[in-house]
Amino acid sequence: GSAISTAVCKNVVNGEFDEKVHIYVYDELVRSNYLSEVINERHENIKYLPGIKLESNLVAVNDLLEAAKEADILIFATAHSFIKPYCNILAGKVKSSAYAVSLIKGLDHIRDGEIDLYSHAISKQLNIPCYSMMSANSAMEMAQGKLSEITIGCNDATHAQQLCNLFETDNCKVFSIDDVDGVELCNTLKDLVALSAGFIDGLRLGENARVACLHLGLKEMMRFIKTFNPNTKLSTFLESCSLANSVASSYADKNVTFAKCFVTSRKTVQEIEANLLNGRKLLGPIVAGEIFAFLDKGKMHDKYPLFTVLHRICQNEVPPDAIVDILRKHPD
Amino acid sequence: GSAISTAVCKNVVNGEFDEKVHIYVYDELVRSNYLSEVINERHENIKYLPGIKLESNLVAVNDLLEAAKEADILIFATAHSFIKPYCNILAGKVKSSAYAVSLIKGLDHIRDGEIDLYSHAISKQLNIPCYSMMSANSAMEMAQGKLSEITIGCNDATHAQQLCNLFETDNCKVFSIDDVDGVELCNTLKDLVALSAGFIDGLRLGENARVACLHLGLKEMMRFIKTFNPNTKLSTFLESCSLANSVASSYADKNVTFAKCFVTSRKTVQEIEANLLNGRKLLGPIVAGEIFAFLDKGKMHDKYPLFTVLHRICQNEVPPDAIVDILRKHPD
Repeated sequence: GSAISTAVCKNVVNGEFDEKVHIYVYDELVRSNYLSEVINERHENIKYLPGIKLESNLVAVNDLLEAAKEADILIFATAHSFIKPYCNILAGKVKSSAYAVSLIKGLDHIRDGEIDLYSHAISKQLNIPCYSMMSANSAMEMAQGKLSEITIGCNDATHAQQLCNLFETDNCKVFSIDDVDGVELCNTLKDLVALSAGFIDGLRLGENARVACLHLGLKEMMRFIKTFNPNTKLSTFLESCSLANSVASSYADKNVTFAKCFVTSRKTVQEIEANLLNGRKLLGPIVAGEIFAFLDKGKMHDKYPLFTVLHRICQNEVPPDAIVDILRKHPD
Repeated sequence: GSAISTAVCKNVVNGEFDEKVHIYVYDELVRSNYLSEVINERHENIKYLPGIKLESNLVAVNDLLEAAKEADILIFATAHSFIKPYCNILAGKVKSSAYAVSLIKGLDHIRDGEIDLYSHAISKQLNIPCYSMMSANSAMEMAQGKLSEITIGCNDATHAQQLCNLFETDNCKVFSIDDVDGVELCNTLKDLVALSAGFIDGLRLGENARVACLHLGLKEMMRFIKTFNPNTKLSTFLESCSLANSVASSYADKNVTFAKCFVTSRKTVQEIEANLLNGRKLLGPIVAGEIFAFLDKGKMHDKYPLFTVLHRICQNEVPPDAIVDILRKHPD
């Protein structure tokens, strides 16, 4: 959120948009101060983006409704578990001419084995369009002004242009494609590719196996997205949101670290989350579980052997090296 | 060569092929013994694949003509500079029913700014079909029996099936696609993607920039291959030969090490080759030069800014950080 806001804050001062950018901050105490006050006084998010100077037109607001009610564009960049409560607060209270952009990773669990996308949930509950966006793999690098890429999925040409103007900087290239669901699904499913790569890493299977995993993981990702959203074009998968981000995630990502640790330590998912992530939930295994249930309901496991085995490994139903046989006999 | 031969030797004993596999070995002295004799006595290539047990039906032969004249399938796995002299020796001397498979990387320089593929050169000079094949990024991992992938470009269904039978093992998946030129060009052009990634590495631009480079490098690779060989399908680029091998090469490859060293040491290409590769030529900068000349002749530099700048950097015409501006303003 803070990393993205830097680009936005610089771009709004050109006159096309309101110059003030509101960022909703949950008011936790950081070193005895409220985070929102620290941001407004020191222009730095000392907890989540330490060392990065934030723009002075970024205003931290600790009341969600106040932050959003006058907004023309709502950018959702938070953990997926906050979406429902936030939308409950905002429903019926945002401008009817507004639109939303979701950077949320994860799948909206509707009922047993049925999933939807968070952009759909946001759009339905707020009654405004919601597009999807995938930012760089490393938010810190982006905030430091290092080169990065963003893919926006947007099916409205005017809004797509506005969003490009909002996010593009000298060091951040923005690509817009007419595929909201494709971008969002890539953003979420790349965690499964990263999990696979992490298991391979932990099993010390080498670099050839890692790329075999990436190659077959991307094939399953493409097939899943085409099934879920038949309008997705092959070209979507050649964009940064699919290819480049899956690659980056396969080499350095929380899911890779987790999966490596899972193989070498033989601890449970929960134990590793407790140690490695201070108890925070890792999204990869959750997404693997949702996908597993979805495939189960549709009796589609045999078409997605890699995605399927990830959940089974995380649940200790099969040992991690079960992934080897899956790669050997993969149908793609 | 030796790594690939292991799979072949195991598979020929099933009856479909002659059980003996000849491997031509240039007879250099290794620890006072001829390499061909060492291979035949100890069943180990102590110079190029130390520690790996070779199959007993692999016969090292130090006379190229003797090694090849009775062969039904000729597998070319050597440096590109040996192709012309080898074909000169073999021309008119191989079975007319034989066919060849080329693992050669590099471009056949015809005349100023004109290039062709080595599979075409082999086919023309030996008057037999020649297909292309791309093996795993790490030959050592492959020889160790770690999981790996091979892509074969072959436009003859019978030969494609034979080649799959010849190379597929439990730990080596073989994919065959009907695109000889596409596979060969991917095998060669991935060195340019690797060079780009190495410059990014040397400039310490971070992981987001590395994948941006990979993403845009693949786009140029795709465009080049489509221009050179309009029959190539988009799906070729999703196979192991393009995607997975470019990725692997961007993270660990001689070209990456070279390019990193080029940026940080400010030595010339020749100086680095002398130090890092014991004077052997690195293929990446040579391919960059060939592509540059080809683009120059066709006045196509503006469509391939990344490929273009690589040669200019290697020639010290522009500093390595010129690549940053190319990525920022890339047309894709």
